[in-house]
Amino acid sequence: MIADTDDPRPRARLRTIIFGTDTPAGRGFDIVLLVLIVTSVTNLMLVSVAAIESRFGALLDGLEWFFTLAFSIEYAARIYAARRRWAYIFSFYGLVDLISILPLYIGLLLPEAQYLVAVRTLRMMRIFRVLKLVRYANDAGVMTRALRHAQRKMQIFLGMLALMVTVLGALMYVVEGPAHGFTSIPRSIYWAIVTITTVGYGDISPSTPLGQAIAGIAILSGYAILAVTGGIITAELTSEISAQRQNTICPHCERSGHEIDAEYCKFCGGDLSHAPEEEPAVDEHQAHARDKLD
Amino acid sequence: MIADTDDPRPRARLRTIIFGTDTPAGRGFDIVLLVLIVTSVTNLMLVSVAAIESRFGALLDGLEWFFTLAFSIEYAARIYAARRRWAYIFSFYGLVDLISILPLYIGLLLPEAQYLVAVRTLRMMRIFRVLKLVRYANDAGVMTRALRHAQRKMQIFLGMLALMVTVLGALMYVVEGPAHGFTSIPRSIYWAIVTITTVGYGDISPSTPLGQAIAGIAILSGYAILAVTGGIITAELTSEISAQRQNTICPHCERSGHEIDAEYCKFCGGDLSHAPEEEPAVDEHQAHARDKLD
Amino acid sequence: MIADTDDPRPRARLRTIIFGTDTPAGRGFDIVLLVLIVTSVTNLMLVSVAAIESRFGALLDGLEWFFTLAFSIEYAARIYAARRRWAYIFSFYGLVDLISILPLYIGLLLPEAQYLVAVRTLRMMRIFRVLKLVRYANDAGVMTRALRHAQRKMQIFLGMLALMVTVLGALMYVVEGPAHGFTSIPRSIYWAIVTITTVGYGDISPSTPLGQAIAGIAILSGYAILAVTGGIITAELTSEISAQRQNTICPHCERSGHEIDAEYCKFCGGDLSHAPEEEPAVDEHQAHARDKLD
Amino acid sequence: MIADTDDPRPRARLRTIIFGTDTPAGRGFDIVLLVLIVTSVTNLMLVSVAAIESRFGALLDGLEWFFTLAFSIEYAARIYAARRRWAYIFSFYGLVDLISILPLYIGLLLPEAQYLVAVRTLRMMRIFRVLKLVRYANDAGVMTRALRHAQRKMQIFLGMLALMVTVLGALMYVVEGPAHGFTSIPRSIYWAIVTITTVGYGDISPSTPLGQAIAGIAILSGYAILAVTGGIITAELTSEISAQRQNTICPHCERSGHEIDAEYCKFCGGDLSHAPEEEPAVDEHQAHARDKLD
Repeated sequence: MIADTDDPRPRARLRTIIFGTDTPAGRGFDIVLLVLIVTSVTNLMLVSVAAIESRFGALLDGLEWFFTLAFSIEYAARIYAARRRWAYIFSFYGLVDLISILPLYIGLLLPEAQYLVAVRTLRMMRIFRVLKLVRYANDAGVMTRALRHAQRKMQIFLGMLALMVTVLGALMYVVEGPAHGFTSIPRSIYWAIVTITTVGYGDISPSTPLGQAIAGIAILSGYAILAVTGGIITAELTSEISAQRQNTICPHCERSGHEIDAEYCKFCGGDLSHAPEEEPAVDEHQAHARDKLD
Repeated sequence: MIADTDDPRPRARLRTIIFGTDTPAGRGFDIVLLVLIVTSVTNLMLVSVAAIESRFGALLDGLEWFFTLAFSIEYAARIYAARRRWAYIFSFYGLVDLISILPLYIGLLLPEAQYLVAVRTLRMMRIFRVLKLVRYANDAGVMTRALRHAQRKMQIFLGMLALMVTVLGALMYVVEGPAHGFTSIPRSIYWAIVTITTVGYGDISPSTPLGQAIAGIAILSGYAILAVTGGIITAELTSEISAQRQNTICPHCERSGHEIDAEYCKFCGGDLSHAPEEEPAVDEHQAHARDKLD
Repeated sequence: MIADTDDPRPRARLRTIIFGTDTPAGRGFDIVLLVLIVTSVTNLMLVSVAAIESRFGALLDGLEWFFTLAFSIEYAARIYAARRRWAYIFSFYGLVDLISILPLYIGLLLPEAQYLVAVRTLRMMRIFRVLKLVRYANDAGVMTRALRHAQRKMQIFLGMLALMVTVLGALMYVVEGPAHGFTSIPRSIYWAIVTITTVGYGDISPSTPLGQAIAGIAILSGYAILAVTGGIITAELTSEISAQRQNTICPHCERSGHEIDAEYCKFCGGDLSHAPEEEPAVDEHQAHARDKLD
Repeated sequence: MIADTDDPRPRARLRTIIFGTDTPAGRGFDIVLLVLIVTSVTNLMLVSVAAIESRFGALLDGLEWFFTLAFSIEYAARIYAARRRWAYIFSFYGLVDLISILPLYIGLLLPEAQYLVAVRTLRMMRIFRVLKLVRYANDAGVMTRALRHAQRKMQIFLGMLALMVTVLGALMYVVEGPAHGFTSIPRSIYWAIVTITTVGYGDISPSTPLGQAIAGIAILSGYAILAVTGGIITAELTSEISAQRQNTICPHCERSGHEIDAEYCKFCGGDLSHAPEEEPAVDEHQAHARDKLD
C-alpha cells in the first residue's frame, strides 16, 4: 500500500512532526493526540455505563468511529514515516497503536455476533489506548529509570512474596478446608495474596479459632517481615543513589554531587551525558561476577 | 459599607490583633478563635447525629446561630483590617471564612425548602470551618514545605497510579463483567483504586477463578512496584535533604550541616534566612532545563 | 499500714531484688514475675472464651485468685521497698500494678451484681496486666527513644490525618447521606479513618456513582500524599541519625561514627555516656526558637 | 540399606552433581529438579480443585506417584552422597525433602481412611515441596543476609505490635462485647491484628458508636506510630549500610565504598571476602555489651 522507495523528504518532514517533540508542529501534533486519547478513553468508559449507553448510544458510537478513524490515520502515518518500519510495528508502541483500532474493524467482520462476549471483550480492549499515554510520560523518566535500576530487588521481593503466599495458602487450605470458603489451594493462595498485601476484601476469611490463630500470627509476622524488607530496599537504594551522586563528575568543571538523573552539570551547566562515573575499567568477566552478587 | 479611607490607626491596631500572633492581644484572639472553631465543628457533628438532634435540636441550633454570628463578625473585621481587601476575600482563607457563615444565611432565604437535600448539603458545608485550623498549622510548616518540594514526585506517583488503575479496571471489566459486580469501566476503576491502594472494602471483588487469578497477580505485582517506588522516592528525598544540609552555609560563622528548614544557625544562632546555598549562578535558561529533568 | 521509718536494711535489700536486675536474686524475681504475667494474661483470655469458661470455670477462677494474690503481694512489696512511695504509686507502673489486682477485690464488694456489664468490664481490665511487660522492654529502649525523638513529626502527621478525615468524612456525609450508611458526620469520619489508613472493613462504603468517584479520587490522592509524607519523615530521620552519628565523639579515643544509641565506643570500648555532641553552647532562648522550628 | 563404607569415588562424583552447582552435570540436575518441583506443586494445586480432580483425578494421581518416586530417589541419593548423613537428614532441607515424599507412603498404610481429614491434611503437606525452592534462592542471599542483620529490629517491632494488639483487643472486648461479634479476647485480638496491620476483612468490626470512636482513634494512632516506627527502622538501616560501605576496605587497592554485600572490589576486582572491616579488636565481653544495646 505504501511504497518503500518514494521521495524521502516528505517522509522525513512527517517523521519530525510525528516522532519529534521539538518543533512547533511536533508539539501541536502531540497535544492533538493527547486530547484524542483522553477523550476517546473517556468515551469508552461512558459506553460501558449501561444508563448512558442506552440514552446516548448512537452519539457515542459515532464518536468511537471518529476516534478509530483518527487513530487509523495516525497508525498509517507512523508506519509510513518510521525509519525502520517493522521495528515500529512490533514495538510496544506499535502494538498498542494497532490494538487501539483493530477491535472495531474485527467487530465489523462479525456483525451477527454483535452481542457475544468475545466481541464485547474485543471492543473494550480499545480502552488500552490509555497506554498510548506512556509515550508522553517522559517526565516520569527519572522514576522509570530508577525502577529499572531496582528491578532486581523487585524480583527478589516478588519471589519472597510468592513463596510466602503459597505456603500460607496451602496451610490455610489444610486448616480451614472447603467448608469455610477455602475450596482449593489456588483459591487459598488468592486469599493469602489478598491478606499478605493487606488488601483484605473479606470475601474469604478464616472462621475457625485455629484458622484465625494461624492467620493472625501469619499476618503479624508477614507485616513485620515486609516492613523491614521494605526498609532494607529503601536503605540500599539510598546508599546507591548517594554513592552515584558522589561518583558522577562533570567533565567540564570536574565537580561532583549531581542528582542521579541530572543531564546537565548544576555548577557550570555543562553536558553530563558523557560524564565518567568514577569507576575504573574492569574486564567483562569480573563485571559479570559482580552482577550475580547484586 | 466600610469606608476605605477612615482613620488608619484603629485599622492597623485591629490588623495586629487579627492577623498577628506576636502581641498578647493577638495571641488571645487566636486562642478564642481556636476554641470557637473546635466547638462549632463539634456542634455541627452533633447536629448530624439523629438521636442527639431530636433531643437537643433547639439548643444546638441556638449555638449554631451564636457561632455563625461570631464568625460573621470575624469575617467583617478581617475585611475591614486587611491590608489588601480583595486579595484577602479571594484568598483560600477568605473563601473558607465566607463558606463558614454563608450557608446559614442562604438557608434563611429559602425557609420553605428547609428539608431539601440542597439545603442539608449547604448546612453541612459549614463543617469545612475545620479548614480555618490550617491557619494555625504553622508548626506543620516544615512538613508543608517538604511536601511542596516533593510535589513533582507525588504527581509522577499519582500519574503512575492512575495509569495502573485504568488498565487494571478495564481488564477486570472484560474478565469479570457486569454479572459479577463490575457493571461499568468507571466502577471497575473504582474497584482497582480500592484494591491497588490496599483499602479493599470487599463491596466488589473478583469471583470467577480467572478474575481471581488476574487480580491476584495484579495485586502482588502492584504491591511490589509501589513498595519499590516508595523506596525510590524516599531514597531520593534522603539524598536531597542530605545534600541541602551540606550546602546551606551560615553567613555569620560559615559552618554548614544545618537542618533543611532551620532558620537560625545551630552553631552561632545567626539568621539563616539569607544564607547562600552553595550553588553558583546559572542563567535562567539552564535552570529551566534542569527543572524539566527533576 | 507500712511504717515509713523501719529498719532500712531489709528494705534496701528488697529494693535490689524487686527494682534491680543485676543481682541473681533480682533476675530470678524478674523471671518469676514474667512467667506470672504471661500465664495470668493467658488465663484471662481463656476465661473470656465461653466454651472453655463453662467447662473449666472453677479451675480458671481458682488460678485467677492465685495470680491476684501473688500480684497483691508484689504490689505491697513494691510500695514497701520503693525509695519514694507516692512517686511509685502514681507512676505509670504503679497504676498498672494497682489495676492488675483492684478489679477482683471490687467485684467481691458487689457480689450480687456479678453479671452486670460494669463488673465484666472491671474483670477484664485485669488483662491490662500485659502492660506490666513494658517494664521488661528495656531491649526496646532504642526504639522508644527514637520514637520520642520523632514525637513532633508523629504529631504533625496525626494532625494532618485528622484534618483529612474530618474534611473527607463531612464531604461523604453530604454526598452519600444517611440512606447509604453515612448516618452522621462522626460515623462518616469513622469511615474516612478506616479508608485513609487503608484498613477498609467494608461495613460502610460509598454506593452512589458520585460517592464512589469522590472516594476513589480521595483514596488515590490520600495514598500518594501519605506515601510521600512517610518518605519525607524517613528522609529527615535518616539525615538526623547520620548527623548524630558523625557528631558523637568518643572522649577516650576521639573517634566519631558511633551508632545513635551506642553507650560504649566501638573502637576503644570507652564509656560514651558523657561524650560531647559536637555542638557549641547556645543560650536557652535560641534553643527554644530552634525547637519551634523543628 | 545404603552401606557407609563403599567406594568413595562414585559418592564424591554424585555429591558434586547433587550438591554442587558449578559443573554442567550439577547445573543440569538443578534444572531438572526445579522443573519437577514446580510441576509437582502445580499438580497438587490442580488436585485440590474439585472440578479438575473429578475429571482428571486418575491422571493427576498417576503424575503424583511419578513425582513422589522421583523425589524419593533424589532423597535416597542425597542421603547416600551427603558428607555428613545425619546432619543432612535433620537439616531444614533434609526435613523438607522427607516431608515431600512421606505423606503418600503413610496414606498407603491407611487406605481405608482415604477420606479422613487427617489424610487430606497429610496429602496436602506435600505442597510444602515448594520450600525446596529455597535451595535455589541463592540470588536472594543479599536480602536474606540483610534480613538476618535486621532481625533484632524486627523482633522489637513484632513485640511492639503484639503488645498493641493485646491491649486494643481486650479494650474492644470490653467495649463491644460478645453481642457484636467480639465473642472472646482471643477473637478480639484477632480483630485487632487484622485492623492494626490494615488488612481489615470486615468479618468483625465495631458497631456501637463508642466502639467505633475507640477503634477510629486506635487506628489513626496505630497508623501514625507504625509509619514513624517504619521510618526509624529504615533510617537506622540506611545509616548502618552507609557506615559499612565506608568501613569495608579492599585489601588489594585499599579503597573503600563497596556495596554491603560485594564479594569483589569494584575498583580492582580483588577478593573482598577477607577484607577487614575498619574496626579494631574488642574483647568478647565488650562485644557482648554492645550486642545488648543494638
